[in-house]
Amino acid sequence: MSRPEITNHKAAIVGGGVIGGGWAARFLLMGWDVAVYDPDPEAERKIGEVMDNARRSLPALHEVALPPEGTLTFRDRIEDAVAGAAWIQESIPERLEMKQRAFDQIQAFCAADAVIGSSTSGFKPSELQSMADVPDQIIVAHPFNPVYLLPLVELVGSPDTTAKAADILTDLGMKPLIVRKEIDAHIADRFLEAVWREGLWMIKDGVATTEEIDDAIRFGFGLRWAQMGLFETYRVAGGEAGMAHFIAQFGPALKWPWTKLMDVPDLTDDLVKTIADQSDAQSGHHTIRELERIRDDNLVAMMRALKGRDWGAGALLNHTDRKLAPKEPDTTEPFVTVERTVPIDWADYNGHMNESRYGQVFSDAADTVMRMVGADAEYIASGKSFFTVEITTKFLEETHVGDPIRVTTQVLRGEGKKLELFHRMYHGKGQLLATGRQLLLHVDLTTRRTALPEGDVAEKMAALARAHAGLERPG
Amino acid sequence: MSRPEITNHKAAIVGGGVIGGGWAARFLLMGWDVAVYDPDPEAERKIGEVMDNARRSLPALHEVALPPEGTLTFRDRIEDAVAGAAWIQESIPERLEMKQRAFDQIQAFCAADAVIGSSTSGFKPSELQSMADVPDQIIVAHPFNPVYLLPLVELVGSPDTTAKAADILTDLGMKPLIVRKEIDAHIADRFLEAVWREGLWMIKDGVATTEEIDDAIRFGFGLRWAQMGLFETYRVAGGEAGMAHFIAQFGPALKWPWTKLMDVPDLTDDLVKTIADQSDAQSGHHTIRELERIRDDNLVAMMRALKGRDWGAGALLNHTDRKLAPKEPDTTEPFVTVERTVPIDWADYNGHMNESRYGQVFSDAADTVMRMVGADAEYIASGKSFFTVEITTKFLEETHVGDPIRVTTQVLRGEGKKLELFHRMYHGKGQLLATGRQLLLHVDLTTRRTALPEGDVAEKMAALARAHAGLERPG
Repeated sequence: MSRPEITNHKAAIVGGGVIGGGWAARFLLMGWDVAVYDPDPEAERKIGEVMDNARRSLPALHEVALPPEGTLTFRDRIEDAVAGAAWIQESIPERLEMKQRAFDQIQAFCAADAVIGSSTSGFKPSELQSMADVPDQIIVAHPFNPVYLLPLVELVGSPDTTAKAADILTDLGMKPLIVRKEIDAHIADRFLEAVWREGLWMIKDGVATTEEIDDAIRFGFGLRWAQMGLFETYRVAGGEAGMAHFIAQFGPALKWPWTKLMDVPDLTDDLVKTIADQSDAQSGHHTIRELERIRDDNLVAMMRALKGRDWGAGALLNHTDRKLAPKEPDTTEPFVTVERTVPIDWADYNGHMNESRYGQVFSDAADTVMRMVGADAEYIASGKSFFTVEITTKFLEETHVGDPIRVTTQVLRGEGKKLELFHRMYHGKGQLLATGRQLLLHVDLTTRRTALPEGDVAEKMAALARAHAGLERPG
Repeated sequence: MSRPEITNHKAAIVGGGVIGGGWAARFLLMGWDVAVYDPDPEAERKIGEVMDNARRSLPALHEVALPPEGTLTFRDRIEDAVAGAAWIQESIPERLEMKQRAFDQIQAFCAADAVIGSSTSGFKPSELQSMADVPDQIIVAHPFNPVYLLPLVELVGSPDTTAKAADILTDLGMKPLIVRKEIDAHIADRFLEAVWREGLWMIKDGVATTEEIDDAIRFGFGLRWAQMGLFETYRVAGGEAGMAHFIAQFGPALKWPWTKLMDVPDLTDDLVKTIADQSDAQSGHHTIRELERIRDDNLVAMMRALKGRDWGAGALLNHTDRKLAPKEPDTTEPFVTVERTVPIDWADYNGHMNESRYGQVFSDAADTVMRMVGADAEYIASGKSFFTVEITTKFLEETHVGDPIRVTTQVLRGEGKKLELFHRMYHGKGQLLATGRQLLLHVDLTTRRTALPEGDVAEKMAALARAHAGLERPG
């Protein structure tokens, strides 16, 4: 039996559905060459669609350029796909015999030191390996959809192979979690299964709809679990009294008839101590107060990220902002165009507002002026807008996360296509922090060229400029 | 019995622990006056600590200023706390008789049209109300910790009272979820309970530690659930074939011995149709392709938010970036200081890179130059740095989410305290998109005043300036 040598940075994908395609995308975008084997005549189209999604999202996670994309090939024979691959990933349907046959074919042609990973969500390595020539080469490498974005991969199998696999996955930007004891469905899918089952009962019993269940998750504990899991979250909730105290309080509820499924482990002193000790090892280097603030900062940053997408908890924040938005100000003097708090996601490494966010504040101030002259969302949708062509920002004082900031804007010019603004950013009602002198031009969004404003926009621009004509002009 | 009239925007908090304190913070920061009743002599300190956390996080969720903070008072008698309150929130320990006694006292003194909400995580409204004079006034209003950030509140009780409560909570920026059928533990806590129980088994059986379980959640499905819940996530995973197809595929696994708890509803045609219909009503206005992209954009934005916090999935991205970072460039010409993709969280409403992010890109370019002259993280930690005092940004062409961008930097001056840079931002290796002329001054971080650079930083600045002395200077 020939054993071709491993070609570094070459992966083989056996089974090219959503999961196999996601693996292919992850490898390719991190610079690996990928050979796909899938008898489905639609495989090339399907993987192409996954690649489209992956190319528009994975590179954007990074502040640096990714390596040049690898080469994707489709092979008609499994031996051509797996020859020389350092990693072979099986993602075929969840039927044990089919998987065992695939491993048989793969091991006949793959390199002896290749990793063979299975995307199985349920089978244990001992089941996958039971018919294999080289059992230890085959491991569970269970990813989460979308594979090109979510980092988690559960690894189960021989210590040597899972250790080698963990190194490769780390290089791919993934989070390998070595599961030390094989168990049906590994770790994460057991939780998914428990929640899925409880959800089915609720729908069957008419307690909640799919949408109500999803809302109960994504506006509440789903946000918590994106950053801390179950136990660290409860450690914080338990407060200074600690994890053992939390279990003493919360544990008894397990005996109540809350769910359909009732088999509960006895909360012996030993089990409570085990949990408390593990929690100390995991999180004990932070005080509860520190963990509270880490949690809160994470939640604020994630909810603000969703705000940018106008989705879920973020869409709710946008809704609240619109209700809180101030009335139009008196315009005879420089008027308030921004009033807000500096959020955590605007911080640089030492807790100051990052210098680029001064530009954001002035851009937001200009948006307020645009709305005031009638260049609002509807106007923009009609195909007209203002573009900034130049802005000069002067930084006078530092400002910090949590500080209240306020911007007043003076209209220096408002005629023809030109709108020129002078922004002053203050700490609350106090110190001047920065100034921005900004020139905007009115554009036609169809031609992307400058054009005269329409309707009463020109008139309102001129009126603001007239109202400020008597004010002292910045130097 | 006297029935004082409701004072608009006045809330009473009965029980001032972590949950009661979180409610108090939410009301106060949204402009309500709050009176607290809690016999615990530590209540004032405890609520003060919650307020400290809330003041530094809740306002930062918003792009506008919140109303002026309300007044917080502590009352020794429950009647003084609840008098005139529009909302009374009970958050005392989970003992039914204690709660029933509290409602008795509250109803003796509160306004007839006040909402009385219970934070109970387990009891049904019929249990809470069973001894009450006015049963319908008492509802479950179950929040999630931290109450001042997480929007979800489960409301269970009479349609009139829950509708009134929902209006008030919406004004507070929360997400009321009216649970139509009373059930032990409402909706969300049933899921938490199921996961908690499964987690306890895994620890008891030595399968996984608390940290491994938390990692299995927060690097995988936790990220999914922060933005779509269980069913919308599976709708996307099921693809074009739809929800019924997904259940047909995934459903049988429920019969396998994956979890400790096995009672499974029969997947009758009726149940499958109910789920598929509900899923259509929830998400059917988006195609699967649209949902995939919404999901991916949400994940990218949230993971990038965690990247800013250097936590969980975000810390992993930072780790990968450091490994991918390019080597130092040839400095005889304008050298590459940024090379990356425009991420989704930099988009404005029409998919262009927001103008303020040009400033961020140039700020990142300056950071690269700082590292090259030896003003790296260690140097900054030693108390020296460069601050930008002025930057002029010219916008030449638009750029879009997903575009590759590249910045070259020319050093115009590098002497004394002054570092002057000229950045050119390109679309990949093509078109010039923008320029930035940036003046930085070297500062002593202790005095926050300008100072001469130390060590070989001055020398390296001068060397870069000399290397670029022969280049054509921008106008």
